[in-house]
This record gives sequence, C-alpha cells and structure tokens, in this order.
Amino acid sequence: MRVAVVMGSLSDLEVMREAMEVLEALGIPYEARVISAHRTPDLVAEYAKRAEGEFDVIIAGAGGAAHLPGAVAAYTTLPVIGVPIPTRHLGGLDSLLSMTQTPRGVPVAVVAIGGAANAALLAARILGIRHAGVRDKLRQYAEQLRREVLSRSLIKEFRPESV
Amino acid sequence: MRVAVVMGSLSDLEVMREAMEVLEALGIPYEARVISAHRTPDLVAEYAKRAEGEFDVIIAGAGGAAHLPGAVAAYTTLPVIGVPIPTRHLGGLDSLLSMTQTPRGVPVAVVAIGGAANAALLAARILGIRHAGVRDKLRQYAEQLRREVLSRSLIKEFRPESV
Amino acid sequence: MRVAVVMGSLSDLEVMREAMEVLEALGIPYEARVISAHRTPDLVAEYAKRAEGEFDVIIAGAGGAAHLPGAVAAYTTLPVIGVPIPTRHLGGLDSLLSMTQTPRGVPVAVVAIGGAANAALLAARILGIRHAGVRDKLRQYAEQLRREVLSRSLIKEFRPESV
Amino acid sequence: MRVAVVMGSLSDLEVMREAMEVLEALGIPYEARVISAHRTPDLVAEYAKRAEGEFDVIIAGAGGAAHLPGAVAAYTTLPVIGVPIPTRHLGGLDSLLSMTQTPRGVPVAVVAIGGAANAALLAARILGIRHAGVRDKLRQYAEQLRREVLSRSLIKEFRPESV
Amino acid sequence: MRVAVVMGSLSDLEVMREAMEVLEALGIPYEARVISAHRTPDLVAEYAKRAEGEFDVIIAGAGGAAHLPGAVAAYTTLPVIGVPIPTRHLGGLDSLLSMTQTPRGVPVAVVAIGGAANAALLAARILGIRHAGVRDKLRQYAEQLRREVLSRSLIKEFRPESV
Amino acid sequence: MRVAVVMGSLSDLEVMREAMEVLEALGIPYEARVISAHRTPDLVAEYAKRAEGEFDVIIAGAGGAAHLPGAVAAYTTLPVIGVPIPTRHLGGLDSLLSMTQTPRGVPVAVVAIGGAANAALLAARILGIRHAGVRDKLRQYAEQLRREVLSRSLIKEFRPESV
Amino acid sequence: MRVAVVMGSLSDLEVMREAMEVLEALGIPYEARVISAHRTPDLVAEYAKRAEGEFDVIIAGAGGAAHLPGAVAAYTTLPVIGVPIPTRHLGGLDSLLSMTQTPRGVPVAVVAIGGAANAALLAARILGIRHAGVRDKLRQYAEQLRREVLSRSLIKEFRPESV
Amino acid sequence: MRVAVVMGSLSDLEVMREAMEVLEALGIPYEARVISAHRTPDLVAEYAKRAEGEFDVIIAGAGGAAHLPGAVAAYTTLPVIGVPIPTRHLGGLDSLLSMTQTPRGVPVAVVAIGGAANAALLAARILGIRHAGVRDKLRQYAEQLRREVLSRSLIKEFRPESV
Repeated sequence: MRVAVVMGSLSDLEVMREAMEVLEALGIPYEARVISAHRTPDLVAEYAKRAEGEFDVIIAGAGGAAHLPGAVAAYTTLPVIGVPIPTRHLGGLDSLLSMTQTPRGVPVAVVAIGGAANAALLAARILGIRHAGVRDKLRQYAEQLRREVLSRSLIKEFRPESV
Repeated sequence: MRVAVVMGSLSDLEVMREAMEVLEALGIPYEARVISAHRTPDLVAEYAKRAEGEFDVIIAGAGGAAHLPGAVAAYTTLPVIGVPIPTRHLGGLDSLLSMTQTPRGVPVAVVAIGGAANAALLAARILGIRHAGVRDKLRQYAEQLRREVLSRSLIKEFRPESV
Repeated sequence: MRVAVVMGSLSDLEVMREAMEVLEALGIPYEARVISAHRTPDLVAEYAKRAEGEFDVIIAGAGGAAHLPGAVAAYTTLPVIGVPIPTRHLGGLDSLLSMTQTPRGVPVAVVAIGGAANAALLAARILGIRHAGVRDKLRQYAEQLRREVLSRSLIKEFRPESV
Repeated sequence: MRVAVVMGSLSDLEVMREAMEVLEALGIPYEARVISAHRTPDLVAEYAKRAEGEFDVIIAGAGGAAHLPGAVAAYTTLPVIGVPIPTRHLGGLDSLLSMTQTPRGVPVAVVAIGGAANAALLAARILGIRHAGVRDKLRQYAEQLRREVLSRSLIKEFRPESV
Repeated sequence: MRVAVVMGSLSDLEVMREAMEVLEALGIPYEARVISAHRTPDLVAEYAKRAEGEFDVIIAGAGGAAHLPGAVAAYTTLPVIGVPIPTRHLGGLDSLLSMTQTPRGVPVAVVAIGGAANAALLAARILGIRHAGVRDKLRQYAEQLRREVLSRSLIKEFRPESV
Repeated sequence: MRVAVVMGSLSDLEVMREAMEVLEALGIPYEARVISAHRTPDLVAEYAKRAEGEFDVIIAGAGGAAHLPGAVAAYTTLPVIGVPIPTRHLGGLDSLLSMTQTPRGVPVAVVAIGGAANAALLAARILGIRHAGVRDKLRQYAEQLRREVLSRSLIKEFRPESV
Repeated sequence: MRVAVVMGSLSDLEVMREAMEVLEALGIPYEARVISAHRTPDLVAEYAKRAEGEFDVIIAGAGGAAHLPGAVAAYTTLPVIGVPIPTRHLGGLDSLLSMTQTPRGVPVAVVAIGGAANAALLAARILGIRHAGVRDKLRQYAEQLRREVLSRSLIKEFRPESV
Repeated sequence: MRVAVVMGSLSDLEVMREAMEVLEALGIPYEARVISAHRTPDLVAEYAKRAEGEFDVIIAGAGGAAHLPGAVAAYTTLPVIGVPIPTRHLGGLDSLLSMTQTPRGVPVAVVAIGGAANAALLAARILGIRHAGVRDKLRQYAEQLRREVLSRSLIKEFRPESV
C-alpha cells in the first residue's frame, strides 16, 4: 500500500503539503515528487509507466493548463486523483477545467480547487476498499469531524423579552 | 467486486447509460438505481450507509445543484465518483462546481461534464488495484483506443507541385 | 415566531453574524447553530425533520458545494433561505450556483453572495405576512434606509464660471 | 391567501406558466400579470405599493437585466420570489446575477434559472407556515415525488456470469 | 449644458469621483447625487422624470444588481450612461451584466467596469455634437493622451554584441 | 442629423438590421456600411476621421474580438455606440467584454448582446437632446411599449372554489 | 517548408479541415494526422521529437482538456499553434483555457475557438518571415479580404423625406 | 533577426519586462515600445506598416479590450504574439478573449494571461526555425528547466513504521 504524490512545480507544494499531512495522519506510506508534464515529459512518461509496480494510487496537483494528472493517467491504469492548484488570475477555474475535461478513455478523479486534503482522503477511501485499517482510520476521521461540529454546534439562542 | 451506479433522476439515464455500458464491457457487476438527494434524502442516507457491505465503488450522476455524490459520500467511506450531468441553461458548469467544491473531509472524485464512460473507467482503475482481471481489461481497452488512433492516424499528405 | 440560522461551518459565522444582528434589531427570536450537510448529515436530517414544530423559517449559509440549504429543504416544508458564502478561489459563484440550481420540488430562496443581512430581512418579510409588528419594523427599517440616502443625497454641484 | 405572479414580458409566460400550474395544483389563489420594470415603471410602483392589502407573496419572473423582482421588492415589505428567465445568449446567468445581487435592505428570494415551479412551491412553503391546508398539500406533493423515485428506482442489476 | 452624476450608494463615490474630476477638467457643469433604485425608488422616479428640463445626459453608477441606470432610463428619454461598479466577490461582472442586458426599448450606454472617467468622456462626446467648445476640449484631451504615449514610447533598444 | 451604422462583417447585418429598422421608424437618416477593423483598418481610420462632418452618432456592431467600436472611437470625438454581436461558441460574452473594457480616454457606449434596436434608441436619445422631434417620437415609442404591456397585462385570475 | 497539422481526435477534423484548406490555398505543404495526448502519448512524444527534421511549424487542434498542443510543445523547440476545438457543453472555453495557460517555458500560440483557418494563416506568417512567396500570398489574401469588404461596403443610405 | 515588443500602456511594462529579460537571455535583439491602439491609432498603423522591413516577429501586450495585437496584425503579415495583461476586476479573462477571438484572416498567437516570458520563448521558437543559434539556446533553456525539476524532484519519502 503506497501512494504517489506528484506536482507540476515546487510552488505547488504549499497546497499539496495538505495531502501529505493527511496521508501521514492516516499512516499511509507515500512518496512526494515534482515532475512536470511540460518541462520533464519523458520523466512523467517513465514515472507513470513504472508506477503500477510501486504505487496503488497517484495524486497529481497542477495549475493552469494542469496537464499532469491526465498525462500520468495516459501511461498507467492506476487511479489518478487531480488537485486543481489555484491560479493567480483565474482562481484555479482554468486548472479545474483542464483537469476534468479529459477525453473518453483517460479519466482523472478531480477534487475541489486547492482540495489537496480531500485528494488524500479520496486515496484513503480507495485503499480502504481492501485495507480495513485505513477504513477504520477514515471512520475515526469522519467521527472526529462530526464531533467537532457537534461540540460547537449551538452558537446563540436569542429570545427577546417581548415578541 | 461490485459497483453502484446511482443518479438523481431518471432523465440522467441518457448520460449515465454510458457508464453502465462500459462496466458491462469490462465485465464488472453493478446495480443501477435512481435515488434523489432532494426528493428521497432518507433513501440516500439508508442506501449509502449499507453500501459498504455491498459495493466497492459508487458512481453518482447528478445535475444542477448536484448534491447526490456529496450526499452519498457523507454517509460512507467508499470512494464516490461524481458525473456532472449537463444542464440546459449552464451546460453543466453548475453541476461541475456543485460536485467538486465539497468541503474538507468529504471528497468526491469528479470526472468531465457528461463523462459517464470515464466514471466507469475510473471505477475499473480503482477495482483494478487488486483485481488483475480488471486491470488486464483496462490495458486491452487502452490498447484498443491506441490502435483506433493509429489505424486512422494519417489523414492527408499535401505536396504542392512547386513550393 | 422563531427563526433557525444554520451554517455549514463555524468559519461561516463571520458572514452569518449579519443575519443574526438584523434579526436581533428586528426583535425576532432565533437559534444559530453549526450543522454540516457533509460532516453531520444525520444531524441535518434530524434537525430539519423536527424544525416544523420549532421554527417558521430557516436561514442556511454554506460555501462551495453549499448543499446545506437544499439538504435542509429536502426534509421540511418550511421555507429555507440560502446564503451563498463567498469562497476563496471562485468568489462564491460556486456557492451561488450550488444553492440556486436545486431540482423541481425542493426550492431554496437564495439571496446575494454574502447577503446574510438580506436573508434576515427576507425571513422578516415572510414572518411579517401575519405579524404586523414585524411588518412595522420592516417599514421603519426601509424608511431609515430611505432617510440615510436622502440626508446625504447631494454630493456636489459644479458650476464652472463660464460654460 | 393569495399570490401575485408577475413577469416582465408576455414571452416569459412560457416559463412562468409552470408556477401557475403548481399554484393551481396546490389550490392557491393567484393573479398572473405582465408588468415591466423598464417599460411600465409607474405601473410596477403602483402595483407593488398596493400589493400588501391584496397578496401575501409575490412571484416575479424576468430575464436579462431582470430588475422586476428587485423593483417590486423596493416598494413593498411582502416577500418577493424571483425567477431568472433563461436568456438566449447567456443562458440566464445574467438574469440570475441581476436578481440575486440586490443591495442590503431589499432582498429577493431567487430560485433556479427557469425554476418557476419551485417559485410556486416556495410561495406555498411561505403560506404553509400558517395555512395547515397548504402545508398538507406540500407534504403530499413531496410524498408523491418520493414515490415516483421509489417506484422506478432500480434500473438494472448486472451480474456477469463469471467475475 | 448640464450633466447629472448619480450613484446607488455613497460607497460608489470612490469610483464615481473620477467622472466628476473629468467633467470638471472639461468645464462641464454637473450635479452629483446619491439616489438608490432599491432604497429610494420614488426619489429615482421623481428625479428621472424631471431630469429632462435640467440635464442633457445622466451618468449612473451602480454595483451588483445595478438597476439604477436602467431605472432612470425607464423614466426619461435622455441618454443614460451606466458605470458598472466593481463588486467584492464577482469583480463587477454582475454589475456589468445587470446594466447592459436591459430589454428592448430602454437602452443604457454601458462603459467598462469601474470606467467612470470614460463615462464622463462619453457624456462630453454627446454634448460635443452641438457644443464646439466641448468638442475642442475632447480633442485637446485626446491629443494630450497621444503625446503622453509618444513622449515615453521607446522603452529600450537591445542590441547584443554578437547575434 | 445623421447616424452611421457600421458593422465588422456582412454576417452582422442579421442583428444590425434591427438598428436600421428602428432608425427608420423614428425617421432618423442613416448610412449603413460594412467596415472591418481587422480586414480594412485603413478604411476604418479614414471613415472615422471624416465622420465628424457627416454624422452625429456612430453605431458599430462587431463580434468576437469586436474591435470596431473602439477603433472608430479612437479616431473621432463623436459618441460611438457598440453592439456586441452574439458569437457561436461564447454567446457574445467575448464581444461584450472586448467592447466595454476599452482603456481610459476612449469610451464606447455598449448596449446588450444583440441589442441593435436599443443602440438605435440610444442614438435617438442622444439626438433628442437638441431635436425635439426625435424626443417626441421617443416618447411616443415609450408610450406605445407601455400600452402594449397594459393592454395585455392581466393573464389569469385563479380563484379555487374553496380555499 | 512543411507544416504538421495534428488533432486529438478524428472528430476534430470537421474544424481542422479549414486549416488544411487554407494551407492548400497558400500552396504550403503539410501532413495532417490524428495523434492523441491521452490515448497515444508515446506516439505524440515520438512524433514531436522527430518533428524538427521534418516540419517548420506544428498546428495542433484539441478539445476539452486539450493537452495536445502543450504536449507536443514539451518535446520540440518548433513553434506550436493551438486550435481550441469547440466543446458541446462549455463552448470551447475549457479548450481555450487548457491551451493558453501552459507554464513558463513551454509556450503555445493559441488562436480563436474553432479558429483553424487563422491557425493556418499564422503558420503562413511564420513561414513568410523567410519565404517571400508565402508572404506575397498572404498579402494577396489580405488584399482579397479587403476587397470583399470594400465591394459590398455600403448596405443602405436612408434619407427620410422630411427630417 | 529582431523582435518588436510593444505594449498598450507603460503600466504593462511590469508584465512585459519578463519578455524583454528572456529575449536578452537568449541574445535576441529587440526594441520595446509603448504604442496604444486606442490613444495613438495612427502610430500603431504606421509602426505596423513599416515593421516588415525592421522586425521578424512582434510581441504585443495589452489589457482589457486589448486590441493592440489584433490592430498590429491587421497592418502586417508578420507573426504577432499577444500577451493578455491581467486586469484588476476580471483577472485578464477580458484581455484573453479580446485577443484570441479575432476574425478569420487576422490571426494573433495568444499565450497565457501574464505570459510574457512564454511570448518571448515563442518568438524564439519562430526565429529558431532558421537560426540554429537560437534553437540551440532554446534547447539549453529547456534542458535547464528539466534539470531544475530533476535536481529537486524528490520532496519526501514517508514510510510509517507499521502499515
């Protein structure tokens, strides 16, 4: 059980770090790496081709033209999760559309703009199908989120003296 | 190994049928069902809660406010794939944003607008992690797509008499 | 006469506080609470189901996928007012579309992005149908807005010496 | 108990007719009328000013600049529901934004683009706060929607011979 | 010869001040005033109705639903210039669409988002049709813009030693 | 008193014809002509430079990059009205933005996408400042629109037998 | 002198044929071919790597995620022109953004959505820098466009009998 | 071999400077200049007409209506590269659409919003067709980008003690 976390640029790390932290919190082994669909296309091809032996799921973050998740998915049959990195001028709408609208045959599993934490949770859900330990941790995580909401649910009760 | 294909309305079947056809072509068992996050919320809750025992992956198609995939994902730790159904007035951009922008903690794996076939292929990639048979079929499918392109690659060679 | 003010996350309080302040200014009793369609779906179901006995109107703020108002509306016949919370990357356009585009059968009354004050005024308009006291306060509020504009209407009169 | 259904142009009737049909199905009295914020502004003012004595809720459909719901809301304290009419070139996104983004003080309760049926249901929810008969009909309507989904929920069960 | 500069809120003055400054620079008399289509609809009606005797052109700035220019244009046959005020969440795209998409019969002359200076210049172009003095000043203004560009046109000439 | 109606392509005539018809209905002399900012830039320059002697207002329709109104406005001090021609793929949003967002110094008076009739009415409003005859016709036109609405205002009065 | 015209799918040929026709009209040799960044990534890599010996310019059409032009540009130093193919649901805005927003280091020269003819003309402009024959043909083409406009420039001259 | 770098306003220099720096790094001679399609149209015409004798490629940056690249392209057969300058309110989406959507006959080679560096690299690719020295520098530049990625590719390897 191992996840690859790849990103198109070192500047994406600020966003992608959240995926790494969630994977660590869930105890899921991973390797994080910068590979660029545009600047190191051969490396992407090579990396994606040998990924099947080494990883179960690939998380790929990219911004703008955001080809990385689709480029990786083109070379492997592993599930590839795409994280649209927010962009300076268009807020990441460009990243989101570039990632989701892949052609029939090469799917990418896209999460929210900047949603690296959710990408890690999605990877965990995928791994959890067969790994009861991961599934248990996901349940604990969900339960913890639930409790956080419940513990601070009531904000205010306003009762004017006369209605 | 079994997939749930759910959709918010019977009118989504036109799009979602492609997911069913791809699953059948890959020999993956599935159940297809209409459940509505808005019109049958209790059914969605119930269905999603007992999904873990019955399914490995859930594919959920919905349009407009498109809450179904997120609603299902809120009740299970299974991976949920969302298919944004095209909408009449906004082309499905509303469906796409409603589906991807789920909050931290509840990921949905979103594919292209109308991308039901890719949702099925993504489900197959997820199942393929442990099912060599599915992985093999995915490779054959990819090889077939590759050959289709190769077999009709050259369209025209234009050489004017004098250049 | 009582209003429920719910929001998907404690971070929405910054926006939703305006709704609370307007309700207080109008002397309308309310309860404000965090409930999350994605992290506490059962709580939302339960809360919405027993809302009819306790509240007249529900105001629900949510951002991004913004399912909360629709999720609440699915479980009750009370009028539900949705406040699209602004989002970091898309300005709240995602929240707005996720909220308005609910399917036939489950309406949400959506106000402006970040329009929590207007949500409270809309709730007051709804209550004012039968509560003359609320209607009077709305008239005073409108009159006050009118006077604020009138009292500072003229900004400048420019008459050059020779035209 | 009476609803006003107004629209900016006779061409909006195609969409707004759905609101009328739903009101009739629910047995709610209404008057449907064309009044234009741009072509008959005085009529709108006059109509909205005397609306309080005659109606409980106003449903206003308009397209493009779509000022009608806001113009009506400016002259009354009744709740005003806005229906963004789809437009030829922008799909109704212009109508939606023109309607929702009213300034603080003058709320409009906006439903989906072309969502006239939901506007009528929202009016019924508002009336239902005090009219148990309307609330009952809404419950029946919801129950009917639920049953429609349930009665045709299962689409297909696919079990390949060998998996 | 006189221009009315109206705006929906005092907060629009920051943008609209540019229109006032350009009118002053061109020596065109004007009155600047806050009137709100939503908060003081009667005042808008009254103001617009008696505008023909007092003004030649009306410049109206508004943000969000941005009904002011259209509301004014509905009550007068004077040319009305609309300035879409930038909005916090949608950048003013909402203001722009709310202003331009008025129905057949009630035109608004819309300039760029935040383009108050251009609104004043457009008013001057309109007045310049009959006022040679204004036309002359517009020519001087254009000439000045031209010279500013020409005077600092060349930024750099780069000639590497060996090419 | 004379208006120039120019358009970037003969295919724009379908939309621009409405401007011509309204001008004719109002008895306003005009010349309609195809001139292209991209294909005949010199002609545009020449035409715009000598326009001041011949015309009072210029209406310019263009689609896509839609430079024509701005290009004309760059060469004249006459008021230039822009009509964004709807485009096949983006509905005319591209035309609208290309036209409105001109830089400080060169205003274009933009109307709705496809709003050629309103462009003619805006030209008439501008001419009407000094031409009482045009102003009278505009009033009659507005009155006629008002009557059309009034004559068919009431669509339906629904009174169920028992409420 | 030779151009490569590549496209991601045979269905793009309907749009890309225009590029081929313009190249033929200008007498520029080319090869047209289907290669897919997602379905035949190795072929794209191989094709792009050996392109420098065979071609001067590459025109690449693709829709949706539209990675092809960027993928080709990643493997070559030849200029790559991208044609955003219109898409069914988003009109090609997705194709446009996916193509233009490539990262620093790997430029794509993007033309209008569906602008295959302009892509060919851009290729001709690039070749024309050194090929006087191509430049001459471009001048003739421009002259022909100019004449077409001039020959049918005047549409109508309207002079009412009394003004 | 020489490139013209033009921009619509001195304020565009902040973005366009990157193009200049890349050209200098590649040893490509250029002239950088402010010329405005709206404020100095005659200068643009003149400059573009005599460009063929002096330059091989033109890079033009402009924001908002962003007519400059198209205006230049209308007067020359040289390849024109457009850089959409980011805008304050719409992020440069207006610049992007204004630039790309030029009509058939007058192509502009558009790069990313704010993509001045890529514009320079695209110019270099065009010059590199015949200038082996430029092509070599592009290869070195690409190699350098590749190495930067490779040298810092691995970010983290996470192996929890027990999986």
